[in-house]
Amino acid sequence: MNIVLLDPRQTESDLWNITASRQLEHLKTHVNVQVGDTLKVGIREGKRYLTEIVEITEHSIRVKSLQEESVPEKLPVTLVVAMPRPKVLRRLMMDAVTMGVEKLILIHSYRVDKSYWQTPFLQQIEHYIMLGLEQAGDTIAPQVEIYKRFKPFTEDVLPILINEHCPAYVAHPYTTLKMPSAIEHPCIVLIGPEGGFIPYEVDLLIKNGCQAVSLGNRILRTETAISYVLGRLFSSTV
Amino acid sequence: MNIVLLDPRQTESDLWNITASRQLEHLKTHVNVQVGDTLKVGIREGKRYLTEIVEITEHSIRVKSLQEESVPEKLPVTLVVAMPRPKVLRRLMMDAVTMGVEKLILIHSYRVDKSYWQTPFLQQIEHYIMLGLEQAGDTIAPQVEIYKRFKPFTEDVLPILINEHCPAYVAHPYTTLKMPSAIEHPCIVLIGPEGGFIPYEVDLLIKNGCQAVSLGNRILRTETAISYVLGRLFSSTV
Repeated sequence: MNIVLLDPRQTESDLWNITASRQLEHLKTHVNVQVGDTLKVGIREGKRYLTEIVEITEHSIRVKSLQEESVPEKLPVTLVVAMPRPKVLRRLMMDAVTMGVEKLILIHSYRVDKSYWQTPFLQQIEHYIMLGLEQAGDTIAPQVEIYKRFKPFTEDVLPILINEHCPAYVAHPYTTLKMPSAIEHPCIVLIGPEGGFIPYEVDLLIKNGCQAVSLGNRILRTETAISYVLGRLFSSTV
Repeated sequence: MNIVLLDPRQTESDLWNITASRQLEHLKTHVNVQVGDTLKVGIREGKRYLTEIVEITEHSIRVKSLQEESVPEKLPVTLVVAMPRPKVLRRLMMDAVTMGVEKLILIHSYRVDKSYWQTPFLQQIEHYIMLGLEQAGDTIAPQVEIYKRFKPFTEDVLPILINEHCPAYVAHPYTTLKMPSAIEHPCIVLIGPEGGFIPYEVDLLIKNGCQAVSLGNRILRTETAISYVLGRLFSSTV
Protein backbone atom coordinates (compact mmCIF):
# COMPACT_ATOMS: atom_id res chain seq x y z
CA MET A 1 0.00 0.00 0.00
CA ASN A 2 1.72 3.16 -1.21
CA ILE A 3 -1.29 5.41 -0.81
CA VAL A 4 -4.41 5.21 1.38
CA LEU A 5 -7.56 5.52 -0.73
CA LEU A 6 -10.58 7.20 0.81
CA ASP A 7 -14.14 7.59 -0.33
CA PRO A 8 -14.95 11.24 -1.17
CA ARG A 9 -17.47 11.22 1.72
CA GLN A 10 -14.59 10.57 4.15
CA THR A 11 -12.91 13.82 3.13
CA GLU A 12 -15.73 16.32 3.51
CA SER A 13 -14.54 17.87 6.79
CA ASP A 14 -11.16 19.51 7.45
CA LEU A 15 -9.68 16.41 9.06
CA TRP A 16 -10.04 13.17 7.11
CA ASN A 17 -10.79 9.93 8.90
CA ILE A 18 -9.23 6.57 7.97
CA THR A 19 -11.48 3.88 9.45
CA ALA A 20 -11.28 0.76 7.23
CA SER A 21 -9.82 -2.09 9.28
CA ARG A 22 -7.61 -3.28 6.39
CA GLN A 23 -6.03 0.16 6.05
CA LEU A 24 -5.71 0.71 9.81
CA GLU A 25 -4.05 -2.66 10.30
CA HIS A 26 -1.56 -2.02 7.51
CA LEU A 27 -0.67 1.45 8.79
CA LYS A 28 -0.39 0.41 12.43
CA THR A 29 1.23 -3.01 12.06
CA HIS A 30 3.35 -2.80 8.91
CA VAL A 31 4.17 0.89 8.62
CA ASN A 32 3.94 1.58 12.37
CA VAL A 33 2.74 5.16 11.78
CA GLN A 34 2.99 7.85 14.48
CA VAL A 35 1.29 11.21 14.98
CA GLY A 36 3.24 13.79 12.97
CA ASP A 37 4.20 11.34 10.19
CA THR A 38 3.28 12.24 6.65
CA LEU A 39 0.99 9.92 4.71
CA LYS A 40 -0.01 9.78 1.05
CA VAL A 41 -3.79 9.78 0.73
CA GLY A 42 -5.91 9.59 -2.41
CA ILE A 43 -9.58 10.30 -2.94
CA ARG A 44 -11.30 7.64 -5.06
CA GLU A 45 -11.79 9.00 -8.58
CA GLY A 46 -10.22 12.26 -7.39
CA LYS A 47 -6.95 13.89 -6.41
CA ARG A 48 -4.14 12.69 -4.16
CA TYR A 49 -2.49 14.54 -1.32
CA LEU A 50 0.40 14.48 1.06
CA THR A 51 -1.17 14.57 4.52
CA GLU A 52 0.00 14.66 8.12
CA ILE A 53 -1.28 12.30 10.80
CA VAL A 54 -2.85 14.31 13.63
CA GLU A 55 -4.56 11.62 15.73
CA ILE A 56 -4.36 7.84 16.10
CA THR A 57 -7.08 6.01 18.04
CA GLU A 58 -8.09 2.36 18.19
CA HIS A 59 -10.60 2.67 15.38
CA SER A 60 -9.36 5.58 13.32
CA ILE A 61 -6.43 7.60 12.05
CA ARG A 62 -7.12 11.28 11.36
CA VAL A 63 -5.06 13.20 8.86
CA LYS A 64 -4.93 16.77 7.59
CA SER A 65 -4.04 17.62 4.00
CA LEU A 66 -0.69 19.35 3.47
CA GLN A 67 -0.44 19.61 -0.31
CA GLU A 68 -1.82 18.17 -3.51
CA GLU A 69 0.29 15.62 -5.43
CA SER A 70 -0.07 14.51 -9.03
CA VAL A 71 -1.95 11.33 -9.85
CA PRO A 72 0.10 9.06 -12.18
CA GLU A 73 -1.11 8.91 -15.76
CA LYS A 74 -2.70 5.80 -17.19
CA LEU A 75 -1.18 3.75 -20.00
CA PRO A 76 -3.34 4.29 -23.12
CA VAL A 77 -4.08 0.61 -23.45
CA THR A 78 -7.08 -1.69 -23.47
CA LEU A 79 -5.92 -5.05 -22.17
CA VAL A 80 -8.01 -8.02 -23.30
CA VAL A 81 -7.23 -11.21 -21.39
CA ALA A 82 -8.67 -14.70 -21.64
CA MET A 83 -10.14 -15.46 -18.21
CA PRO A 84 -7.35 -17.05 -16.14
CA ARG A 85 -7.50 -19.44 -13.17
CA PRO A 86 -9.04 -17.73 -10.13
CA LYS A 87 -5.86 -17.23 -8.14
CA VAL A 88 -4.09 -15.87 -11.19
CA LEU A 89 -7.07 -13.55 -11.83
CA ARG A 90 -6.54 -11.73 -8.52
CA ARG A 91 -2.88 -10.95 -9.15
CA LEU A 92 -3.51 -10.18 -12.80
CA MET A 93 -6.26 -7.66 -11.97
CA MET A 94 -4.15 -5.98 -9.31
CA ASP A 95 -1.10 -5.82 -11.56
CA ALA A 96 -3.02 -4.48 -14.55
CA VAL A 97 -4.44 -1.74 -12.33
CA THR A 98 -1.04 -1.04 -10.77
CA MET A 99 0.64 -0.65 -14.16
CA GLY A 100 -2.07 1.83 -15.17
CA VAL A 101 -4.12 -0.10 -17.73
CA GLU A 102 -6.96 2.19 -18.81
CA LYS A 103 -9.45 -0.54 -19.61
CA LEU A 104 -9.42 -4.26 -18.81
CA ILE A 105 -11.58 -6.76 -20.65
CA LEU A 106 -11.95 -10.39 -19.58
CA ILE A 107 -13.12 -12.76 -22.30
CA HIS A 108 -13.92 -16.42 -22.75
CA SER A 109 -11.80 -18.57 -25.04
CA TYR A 110 -11.78 -22.26 -26.01
CA ARG A 111 -9.00 -23.15 -23.57
CA VAL A 112 -10.61 -21.28 -20.65
CA ASP A 113 -12.14 -23.80 -18.23
CA LYS A 114 -15.82 -22.87 -17.89
CA SER A 115 -15.58 -23.29 -14.11
CA TYR A 116 -13.32 -20.22 -13.95
CA TRP A 117 -16.39 -18.03 -14.51
CA GLN A 118 -17.90 -19.32 -11.25
CA THR A 119 -15.11 -17.91 -9.07
CA PRO A 120 -16.23 -15.64 -6.20
CA PHE A 121 -13.25 -13.40 -7.06
CA LEU A 122 -15.32 -11.99 -9.91
CA GLN A 123 -17.64 -10.50 -7.27
CA GLN A 124 -14.63 -8.87 -5.60
CA ILE A 125 -13.20 -7.07 -8.60
CA GLU A 126 -13.77 -3.73 -6.90
CA HIS A 127 -11.58 -4.88 -4.00
CA TYR A 128 -8.69 -5.94 -6.25
CA ILE A 129 -8.92 -2.69 -8.18
CA MET A 130 -8.60 -0.84 -4.87
CA LEU A 131 -5.52 -2.90 -3.91
CA GLY A 132 -3.96 -2.23 -7.31
CA LEU A 133 -4.58 1.50 -7.06
CA GLU A 134 -3.15 1.62 -3.53
CA GLN A 135 -0.04 -0.24 -4.73
CA ALA A 136 0.45 2.16 -7.64
CA GLY A 137 -0.40 5.38 -5.84
CA ASP A 138 -3.29 5.91 -8.25
CA THR A 139 -6.86 7.04 -7.51
CA ILE A 140 -8.76 6.37 -10.75
CA ALA A 141 -10.19 2.89 -11.34
CA PRO A 142 -9.88 1.45 -14.84
CA GLN A 143 -12.97 0.33 -16.73
CA VAL A 144 -13.56 -3.41 -16.49
CA GLU A 145 -15.75 -5.34 -18.93
CA ILE A 146 -16.55 -9.03 -19.17
CA TYR A 147 -17.59 -11.00 -22.26
CA LYS A 148 -18.42 -14.64 -21.69
CA ARG A 149 -18.72 -15.44 -25.40
CA PHE A 150 -15.68 -15.19 -27.65
CA LYS A 151 -17.32 -14.82 -31.06
CA PRO A 152 -19.76 -11.97 -30.28
CA PHE A 153 -16.94 -10.10 -28.50
CA THR A 154 -14.57 -10.54 -31.43
CA GLU A 155 -17.08 -9.76 -34.17
CA ASP A 156 -19.22 -7.06 -32.52
CA VAL A 157 -17.20 -5.36 -29.77
CA LEU A 158 -13.57 -5.54 -30.84
CA PRO A 159 -13.97 -3.91 -34.30
CA ILE A 160 -15.46 -0.80 -32.63
CA LEU A 161 -12.37 -0.46 -30.41
CA ILE A 162 -9.85 -0.83 -33.25
CA ASN A 163 -9.04 2.07 -35.58
CA GLU A 164 -6.04 3.45 -37.45
CA HIS A 165 -4.86 5.33 -34.35
CA CYS A 166 -5.47 2.37 -32.05
CA PRO A 167 -4.28 -0.98 -33.44
CA ALA A 168 -4.84 -4.34 -31.72
CA TYR A 169 -1.98 -6.78 -31.10
CA VAL A 170 -2.61 -10.41 -30.26
CA ALA A 171 0.35 -12.18 -28.69
CA HIS A 172 0.87 -15.38 -30.64
CA PRO A 173 3.92 -17.63 -30.46
CA TYR A 174 3.88 -18.85 -34.05
CA THR A 175 4.27 -15.73 -36.15
CA THR A 176 7.31 -13.86 -37.40
CA LEU A 177 6.10 -10.25 -36.95
CA LYS A 178 7.40 -8.94 -33.62
CA MET A 179 5.33 -7.26 -30.91
CA PRO A 180 6.00 -3.52 -31.40
CA SER A 181 7.98 -1.54 -28.82
CA ALA A 182 8.15 2.09 -27.65
CA ILE A 183 4.88 2.99 -29.36
CA GLU A 184 3.48 6.50 -28.98
CA HIS A 185 -0.19 5.83 -29.60
CA PRO A 186 -2.97 3.96 -27.82
CA CYS A 187 -3.45 0.27 -28.53
CA ILE A 188 -5.30 -2.88 -27.64
CA VAL A 189 -3.36 -5.92 -26.40
CA LEU A 190 -4.88 -9.39 -26.39
CA ILE A 191 -3.37 -12.15 -24.26
CA GLY A 192 -4.64 -15.72 -24.63
CA PRO A 193 -5.15 -18.38 -21.97
CA GLU A 194 -2.53 -20.90 -20.83
CA GLY A 195 -2.04 -22.97 -23.97
CA GLY A 196 -2.87 -19.98 -26.17
CA PHE A 197 -5.80 -19.07 -28.39
CA ILE A 198 -6.73 -21.93 -30.73
CA PRO A 199 -6.08 -21.41 -34.49
CA TYR A 200 -9.80 -20.72 -35.15
CA GLU A 201 -9.72 -17.93 -32.57
CA VAL A 202 -6.49 -16.40 -33.89
CA ASP A 203 -7.96 -16.46 -37.40
CA LEU A 204 -11.18 -14.78 -36.22
CA LEU A 205 -9.19 -12.12 -34.32
CA ILE A 206 -7.10 -11.38 -37.41
CA LYS A 207 -10.21 -11.30 -39.60
CA ASN A 208 -11.65 -8.69 -37.25
CA GLY A 209 -8.67 -6.37 -37.36
CA CYS A 210 -6.00 -7.75 -34.99
CA GLN A 211 -2.33 -8.14 -35.83
CA ALA A 212 -0.76 -11.42 -34.63
CA VAL A 213 2.66 -10.61 -33.17
CA SER A 214 5.35 -12.67 -31.49
CA LEU A 215 7.09 -12.20 -28.15
CA GLY A 216 10.02 -14.39 -29.15
CA ASN A 217 10.36 -18.12 -28.73
CA ARG A 218 9.93 -18.33 -24.98
CA ILE A 219 6.43 -19.08 -23.77
CA LEU A 220 5.57 -16.87 -20.79
CA ARG A 221 2.83 -17.34 -18.21
CA THR A 222 -0.16 -15.03 -18.75
CA GLU A 223 0.66 -12.73 -15.83
CA THR A 224 4.30 -12.47 -16.81
CA ALA A 225 3.46 -11.83 -20.44
CA ILE A 226 1.23 -8.87 -19.51
CA SER A 227 3.89 -6.89 -17.62
CA TYR A 228 6.56 -7.93 -20.13
CA VAL A 229 4.45 -6.61 -23.02
CA LEU A 230 3.38 -3.39 -21.29
CA GLY A 231 6.99 -2.59 -20.34
CA ARG A 232 7.97 -3.13 -23.96
CA LEU A 233 5.11 -1.22 -25.59
CA PHE A 234 5.21 1.86 -23.40
CA SER A 235 8.94 2.29 -22.87
CA SER A 236 8.80 5.72 -24.51
CA THR A 237 5.95 7.08 -22.38
CA VAL A 238 7.02 5.88 -18.92
CA MET B 1 4.88 -27.19 -19.28
CA ASN B 2 5.83 -26.48 -22.90
CA ILE B 3 8.70 -28.94 -23.03
CA VAL B 4 9.52 -32.11 -21.07
CA LEU B 5 13.02 -31.90 -19.59
CA LEU B 6 14.98 -35.12 -19.23
CA ASP B 7 18.25 -35.94 -17.56
CA PRO B 8 20.96 -36.83 -20.13
CA ARG B 9 21.04 -40.35 -18.65
CA GLN B 10 17.40 -40.83 -19.68
CA THR B 11 18.30 -40.30 -23.33
CA GLU B 12 21.17 -42.74 -23.79
CA SER B 13 19.21 -45.42 -25.65
CA ASP B 14 17.25 -44.97 -28.90
CA LEU B 15 13.92 -44.58 -27.15
CA TRP B 16 13.78 -42.05 -24.33
CA ASN B 17 11.82 -42.79 -21.19
CA ILE B 18 9.74 -40.19 -19.31
CA THR B 19 9.21 -41.54 -15.80
CA ALA B 20 8.90 -38.57 -13.39
CA SER B 21 5.44 -38.67 -11.82
CA ARG B 22 5.02 -34.87 -12.14
CA GLN B 23 5.69 -35.01 -15.88
CA LEU B 24 3.60 -38.15 -16.43
CA GLU B 25 0.63 -36.67 -14.59
CA HIS B 26 0.80 -33.44 -16.58
CA LEU B 27 1.04 -35.25 -19.91
CA LYS B 28 -1.69 -37.79 -19.15
CA THR B 29 -4.16 -35.58 -17.26
CA HIS B 30 -3.73 -32.09 -18.69
CA VAL B 31 -2.45 -32.73 -22.21
CA ASN B 32 -4.08 -36.14 -22.58
CA VAL B 33 -1.30 -37.40 -24.85
CA GLN B 34 -1.75 -40.40 -27.17
CA VAL B 35 0.65 -42.73 -28.96
CA GLY B 36 1.62 -41.04 -32.23
CA ASP B 37 1.42 -37.49 -30.81
CA THR B 38 4.47 -35.27 -31.10
CA LEU B 39 6.07 -33.96 -27.93
CA LYS B 40 8.76 -31.36 -27.34
CA VAL B 41 11.54 -32.82 -25.20
CA GLY B 42 14.68 -31.13 -23.91
CA ILE B 43 17.84 -32.61 -22.44
CA ARG B 44 18.99 -30.77 -19.33
CA GLU B 45 21.94 -28.54 -20.23
CA GLY B 46 21.69 -29.87 -23.79
CA LYS B 47 19.62 -29.75 -26.95
CA ARG B 48 15.87 -29.90 -27.51
CA TYR B 49 13.96 -32.12 -29.89
CA LEU B 50 10.62 -32.74 -31.44
CA THR B 51 9.78 -36.35 -30.55
CA GLU B 52 7.01 -38.81 -31.19
CA ILE B 53 5.29 -40.82 -28.48
CA VAL B 54 5.68 -44.54 -29.19
CA GLU B 55 4.44 -46.13 -25.96
CA ILE B 56 2.38 -45.10 -22.95
CA THR B 57 2.30 -47.33 -19.86
CA GLU B 58 1.24 -46.70 -16.27
CA HIS B 59 4.71 -45.62 -15.17
CA SER B 60 6.34 -44.33 -18.32
CA ILE B 61 5.97 -42.62 -21.65
CA ARG B 62 8.51 -43.60 -24.31
CA VAL B 63 9.39 -41.24 -27.12
CA LYS B 64 11.65 -41.33 -30.17
CA SER B 65 13.46 -38.25 -31.45
CA LEU B 66 12.24 -36.85 -34.80
CA GLN B 67 14.32 -33.70 -35.23
CA GLU B 68 16.41 -31.21 -33.34
CA GLU B 69 14.90 -27.81 -32.47
CA SER B 70 16.68 -24.63 -31.43
CA VAL B 71 16.96 -23.76 -27.74
CA PRO B 72 15.84 -20.15 -27.08
CA GLU B 73 18.64 -17.71 -26.35
CA LYS B 74 19.12 -16.21 -22.91
CA LEU B 75 18.71 -12.51 -22.14
CA PRO B 76 22.20 -11.10 -21.44
CA VAL B 77 21.21 -9.94 -17.98
CA THR B 78 22.25 -10.52 -14.39
CA LEU B 79 19.18 -9.96 -12.24
CA VAL B 80 19.90 -8.98 -8.64
CA VAL B 81 16.82 -9.15 -6.42
CA ALA B 82 16.37 -8.43 -2.73
CA MET B 83 15.09 -11.66 -1.19
CA PRO B 84 11.27 -11.59 -1.42
CA ARG B 85 8.61 -13.30 0.69
CA PRO B 86 8.73 -17.08 0.22
CA LYS B 87 5.64 -17.44 -1.94
CA VAL B 88 6.78 -14.56 -4.14
CA LEU B 89 10.24 -16.17 -4.38
CA ARG B 90 8.84 -19.25 -6.09
CA ARG B 91 7.04 -17.34 -8.83
CA LEU B 92 9.89 -14.87 -9.19
CA MET B 93 12.46 -17.65 -9.69
CA MET B 94 10.26 -19.43 -12.22
CA ASP B 95 9.52 -16.25 -14.12
CA ALA B 96 13.14 -15.10 -14.20
CA VAL B 97 14.12 -18.49 -15.61
CA THR B 98 11.21 -18.45 -18.08
CA MET B 99 12.15 -15.03 -19.42
CA GLY B 100 15.71 -16.26 -19.95
CA VAL B 101 17.69 -14.43 -17.26
CA GLU B 102 21.29 -15.60 -17.57
CA LYS B 103 22.23 -15.17 -13.92
CA LEU B 104 20.04 -14.58 -10.86
CA ILE B 105 21.44 -13.22 -7.61
CA LEU B 106 19.42 -13.07 -4.39
CA ILE B 107 20.69 -10.56 -1.83
CA HIS B 108 19.82 -9.33 1.64
CA SER B 109 18.67 -5.75 2.16
CA TYR B 110 17.52 -3.71 5.16
CA ARG B 111 13.82 -4.17 4.39
CA VAL B 112 14.14 -7.94 3.84
CA ASP B 113 12.68 -9.79 6.82
CA LYS B 114 15.45 -12.07 8.12
CA SER B 115 12.94 -14.94 8.43
CA TYR B 116 12.70 -15.05 4.62
CA TRP B 117 16.12 -16.72 4.52
CA GLN B 118 14.74 -19.67 6.50
CA THR B 119 12.24 -20.66 3.82
CA PRO B 120 12.40 -24.29 2.65
CA PHE B 121 11.86 -22.97 -0.91
CA LEU B 122 15.55 -22.03 -0.97
CA GLN B 123 16.32 -25.76 -0.83
CA GLN B 124 14.08 -26.33 -3.83
CA ILE B 125 15.60 -23.78 -6.20
CA GLU B 126 16.57 -26.57 -8.57
CA HIS B 127 12.89 -27.58 -8.79
CA TYR B 128 11.68 -24.05 -9.62
CA ILE B 129 14.41 -23.65 -12.22
CA MET B 130 13.18 -26.85 -13.84
CA LEU B 131 9.57 -25.56 -13.87
CA GLY B 132 10.72 -22.25 -15.36
CA LEU B 133 12.72 -24.00 -18.09
CA GLU B 134 9.79 -26.29 -18.92
CA GLN B 135 7.47 -23.26 -19.19
CA ALA B 136 9.88 -21.42 -21.50
CA GLY B 137 10.92 -24.38 -23.63
CA ASP B 138 14.52 -23.88 -22.49
CA THR B 139 17.05 -26.50 -21.39
CA ILE B 140 19.88 -24.49 -19.83
CA ALA B 141 19.61 -23.48 -16.16
CA PRO B 142 20.74 -19.95 -15.23
CA GLN B 143 23.40 -19.45 -12.60
CA VAL B 144 21.96 -18.68 -9.18
CA GLU B 145 23.97 -17.02 -6.40
CA ILE B 146 22.96 -15.97 -2.90
CA TYR B 147 24.54 -13.24 -0.75
CA LYS B 148 23.12 -12.87 2.73
CA ARG B 149 25.04 -9.68 3.49
CA PHE B 150 24.34 -6.51 1.51
CA LYS B 151 27.57 -4.57 2.06
CA PRO B 152 30.09 -7.28 1.11
CA PHE B 153 28.02 -8.07 -1.98
CA THR B 154 27.83 -4.43 -3.02
CA GLU B 155 31.47 -3.60 -2.31
CA ASP B 156 33.23 -6.81 -3.27
CA VAL B 157 31.06 -8.73 -5.76
CA LEU B 158 29.10 -6.12 -7.70
CA PRO B 159 32.07 -3.99 -8.90
CA ILE B 160 33.58 -7.08 -10.57
CA LEU B 161 30.36 -7.62 -12.56
CA ILE B 162 30.06 -4.00 -13.74
CA ASN B 163 32.14 -2.67 -16.63
CA GLU B 164 31.78 -0.22 -19.51
CA HIS B 165 30.07 -2.87 -21.66
CA CYS B 166 27.83 -4.06 -18.83
CA PRO B 167 26.26 -1.25 -16.76
CA ALA B 168 24.15 -1.81 -13.65
CA TYR B 169 20.72 -0.20 -13.23
CA VAL B 170 19.04 0.01 -9.86
CA ALA B 171 15.29 0.67 -10.03
CA HIS B 172 14.58 3.58 -7.72
CA PRO B 173 11.34 5.56 -7.59
CA TYR B 174 12.86 8.92 -6.64
CA THR B 175 15.19 9.76 -9.48
CA THR B 176 14.66 11.56 -12.77
CA LEU B 177 16.89 9.45 -15.04
CA LYS B 178 14.72 6.87 -16.80
CA MET B 179 15.36 3.14 -16.96
CA PRO B 180 16.89 2.59 -20.43
CA SER B 181 14.98 0.72 -23.12
CA ALA B 182 15.84 -1.38 -26.17
CA ILE B 183 19.48 -1.77 -25.13
CA GLU B 184 21.82 -3.88 -27.23
CA HIS B 185 24.40 -4.81 -24.61
CA PRO B 186 24.46 -6.95 -21.46
CA CYS B 187 23.50 -5.34 -18.17
CA ILE B 188 22.83 -5.88 -14.50
CA VAL B 189 19.41 -4.99 -13.08
CA LEU B 190 18.86 -4.55 -9.34
CA ILE B 191 15.36 -4.69 -7.87
CA GLY B 192 14.81 -3.76 -4.22
CA PRO B 193 12.45 -5.32 -1.67
CA GLU B 194 8.85 -4.23 -1.05
CA GLY B 195 9.34 -0.70 0.32
CA GLY B 196 12.52 -0.27 -1.73
CA PHE B 197 16.21 -0.09 -0.89
CA ILE B 198 16.87 2.38 1.96
CA PRO B 199 18.78 5.59 1.08
CA TYR B 200 22.02 4.20 2.59
CA GLU B 201 21.77 1.18 0.29
CA VAL B 202 21.01 3.24 -2.81
CA ASP B 203 23.98 5.48 -2.00
CA LEU B 204 26.27 2.48 -1.54
CA LEU B 205 25.06 0.94 -4.81
CA ILE B 206 25.72 4.20 -6.68
CA LYS B 207 29.14 4.56 -5.04
CA ASN B 208 29.96 1.08 -6.33
CA GLY B 209 29.04 1.77 -9.93
CA CYS B 210 25.25 1.49 -10.25
CA GLN B 211 23.00 3.99 -12.01
CA ALA B 212 19.76 4.82 -10.17
CA VAL B 213 16.96 4.90 -12.73
CA SER B 214 13.22 5.42 -12.52
CA LEU B 215 10.35 3.31 -13.80
CA GLY B 216 7.89 6.20 -13.68
CA ASN B 217 5.71 7.24 -10.79
CA ARG B 218 3.80 4.02 -10.31
CA ILE B 219 5.18 1.68 -7.67
CA LEU B 220 5.10 -1.91 -8.96
CA ARG B 221 5.32 -5.14 -6.97
CA THR B 222 8.74 -6.82 -7.19
CA GLU B 223 7.58 -9.61 -9.51
CA THR B 224 5.74 -7.24 -11.79
CA ALA B 225 8.67 -4.83 -11.93
CA ILE B 226 11.01 -7.60 -13.09
CA SER B 227 9.03 -8.61 -16.18
CA TYR B 228 8.13 -4.97 -16.89
CA VAL B 229 11.82 -3.99 -16.84
CA LEU B 230 13.03 -6.98 -18.85
CA GLY B 231 10.37 -6.38 -21.53
CA ARG B 232 11.52 -2.77 -21.72
CA LEU B 233 15.27 -3.37 -21.70
CA PHE B 234 15.36 -6.16 -24.25
CA SER B 235 12.70 -5.03 -26.70
CA SER B 236 15.28 -4.88 -29.50
CA THR B 237 16.67 -8.39 -28.95
CA VAL B 238 13.44 -10.38 -28.48
